[in-house]
Amino acid sequence: MSRKIIGVMGPGESATKLDISIAYEIGKSIGANGWVLLTGGRNAGVMHAATLGAKEAGGTTIGILPTTFNKDISPYVDIPIITDMGDARNNINVLSSKIVIVCGMSPGTASEIALAIKAKKHIILLNQATESKNFFQFLSPDLVHTATIPEDAIKMIRGLI
Amino acid sequence: MSRKIIGVMGPGESATKLDISIAYEIGKSIGANGWVLLTGGRNAGVMHAATLGAKEAGGTTIGILPTTFNKDISPYVDIPIITDMGDARNNINVLSSKIVIVCGMSPGTASEIALAIKAKKHIILLNQATESKNFFQFLSPDLVHTATIPEDAIKMIRGLI
Amino acid sequence: MSRKIIGVMGPGESATKLDISIAYEIGKSIGANGWVLLTGGRNAGVMHAATLGAKEAGGTTIGILPTTFNKDISPYVDIPIITDMGDARNNINVLSSKIVIVCGMSPGTASEIALAIKAKKHIILLNQATESKNFFQFLSPDLVHTATIPEDAIKMIRGLI
Amino acid sequence: MSRKIIGVMGPGESATKLDISIAYEIGKSIGANGWVLLTGGRNAGVMHAATLGAKEAGGTTIGILPTTFNKDISPYVDIPIITDMGDARNNINVLSSKIVIVCGMSPGTASEIALAIKAKKHIILLNQATESKNFFQFLSPDLVHTATIPEDAIKMIRGLI
Repeated sequence: MSRKIIGVMGPGESATKLDISIAYEIGKSIGANGWVLLTGGRNAGVMHAATLGAKEAGGTTIGILPTTFNKDISPYVDIPIITDMGDARNNINVLSSKIVIVCGMSPGTASEIALAIKAKKHIILLNQATESKNFFQFLSPDLVHTATIPEDAIKMIRGLI
Repeated sequence: MSRKIIGVMGPGESATKLDISIAYEIGKSIGANGWVLLTGGRNAGVMHAATLGAKEAGGTTIGILPTTFNKDISPYVDIPIITDMGDARNNINVLSSKIVIVCGMSPGTASEIALAIKAKKHIILLNQATESKNFFQFLSPDLVHTATIPEDAIKMIRGLI
Repeated sequence: MSRKIIGVMGPGESATKLDISIAYEIGKSIGANGWVLLTGGRNAGVMHAATLGAKEAGGTTIGILPTTFNKDISPYVDIPIITDMGDARNNINVLSSKIVIVCGMSPGTASEIALAIKAKKHIILLNQATESKNFFQFLSPDLVHTATIPEDAIKMIRGLI
Repeated sequence: MSRKIIGVMGPGESATKLDISIAYEIGKSIGANGWVLLTGGRNAGVMHAATLGAKEAGGTTIGILPTTFNKDISPYVDIPIITDMGDARNNINVLSSKIVIVCGMSPGTASEIALAIKAKKHIILLNQATESKNFFQFLSPDLVHTATIPEDAIKMIRGLI
C-alpha cells in the first residue's frame, strides 16, 4: 500500500553545475511518474535540485535532515524528517528508498552508495568519474548500474521497481 | 512550504481498546484537517489505529519504523521511513512532529513524551492515569497539556499550530 | 569477558547541588568497586560529577557524547564515544549499561529511564520527587527501585549484577 | 585527558585469511603501543581478529555493536557499546577514532572510509585492490594513505597522532 520511494543522492555544496542539472531532470521525471522523491533534504546541491524538479512536476518530496536547523531545509521539501543524527542519517536515506539514483560524488554520497549496497538496494550511477564507477562495480557488479542520461536512469527504474 | 506534521504516539501491542479507539478518532480528525499524520509506523496499537483513521479521512500518513521488517509496517502507512535504529528512532518521531498527541502509556511512549519536552514541542495527553499526568506536568507545566476527548485535542492543535 | 558497565544518568546544566554531590559519591563507589562508569559524557552536572568521582577512585570512565564538540567532553572521560546523534544517543546509554542509576530529573533523564525500562534494565532512582517515583514505579514496579543514600544504591547494584 | 583511540575497520564474515592475519597484527601493535582499539565489535572477521590481537598485547578494546544480540559480541571486547542502530553505527565508529585503519573491503567497510573522510579523519588502507585505492585517493588525496605491511601503518599512526 505504501508509495514507491526513489532516493536521489549526491553532493551538497560541492555539486557541479552538471550534477545539479541532472538532479533537477531526474527529480522532475520522478515526480511526473508518480513516485515519491527522497533526498537528504538540505537546501543545497543535488538534494535541492532534485526536490525542486519533483515539486515542479507535481510530485511529493521527502527530506531526511541531518540537523534541527530549519533554514537548512530545502523549501521544496513537503515532508521534512528531522533526525538530528548527522551523517548517520545516510543509512535511513538508503533504507527508505526502493532504488537509489546518484548524481555526482562526495564523501557523504560515497557512504550512501556503500550503505545501499549493504542493504541490497539497486543503485544507478549518473555523471561519474571512472574511479567511482570502477570501485562500486568492483564492490557489487549486480547492484550497481550506470547510466549516462537521466532518461536511461528512468527506464532502468521502471525495469527494477 | 513543508506540510504540517502531527505526531500521534502511544503503545503498540499493549494498547487498550480505549487507546485504540481514541487513536483512530484522532487520526481521522488529523486527516480531515489536512495535516500529515506521523507515527512509529508499526502494525500495532495506537500507531496502526491512528494511521487507519487518517487514511480513511483521505490524509497522508508517515511511519518512522524501528526495524527493516516489512511485515511490521502498518498497511495504511503511505510513506515508511526505515530507520533500523530501534527505540532511538523515538527521537526522530518527536523532532519531526510540530505537535505530539499521546494516547495511552508504555515505556516507549514515556520516552517520546520526555524527548518531546527536551525538544520544546507541545504535547497533548489523552486517556492518561493520574501518575502520568502528574509526572509530565511536573516535568514541564508549559509544554504538557491534557485533554479528555479527541475533539478537545483537535481544538488545542488548532490553537498551537 | 566484557567488563561490568554501570550507567549514571541525570541532569546536565540543571542539576542541583545535591544531585551533583550524590553523583560524585556514586561515581567514586563505582570506580572503587572495579566497575566501569558510563555517562552521557558532557562536561556538566551529573555526568561530569560521576565521572570525576570514578576517576578519583581509579576507575575507568566512558562518555557517550551527543555532539562532535570537543570542549563539551568532561575532561575525566577516558573513552569518549562520539555519536553526533543528539538525544537519540540516550538509547545507547541505557543499552550499554547493565544497571542504570539516576540522580535528579530532567526531560533527557526521564527519556533514559523510560528507554531503560523498555530495554528491561534495572534502574535505581536517587534523590527523586514523589511525582517521579510514582510515575516510574507505575510504569514498571519490577524494574524501578528507589534508594535514599548512595551506599544503598551500591548495595542494590551488588545484588542485581 | 581522554585516551587515544585507533579504529580498525574491515569485513566481518567475508574477510579473507590475509585480512584477518593483518588485522590481528595491527591489533597487537595497537595494544602494545598503549592505544585503545575500537572496532565494530562483532565476533567475526577483522573486528574479532584485531580485538584478539589487542587483548593478547594487554590492550583495551572497545566494540561498537550494531545489535543487542550478546552472542554476536567478540569475547575479547572489554567495553561493548550497544547501539542497536545497525549500519548507522558505522558513523560512530569513525567519529570516535582518532585514526582509522582499514584491512580488506566490503560495503560496510567502504561506508566507514567514506564517513571517515567526511569527518576529516586520517585513514590508512592495508591490503587493498587497485579499484579501492584509486577511488578513495580520488575522493581525498590528503586524508587517504596506503601501507603494505602493518609495521608501516603503525609508523604512520605515530606520525599522525
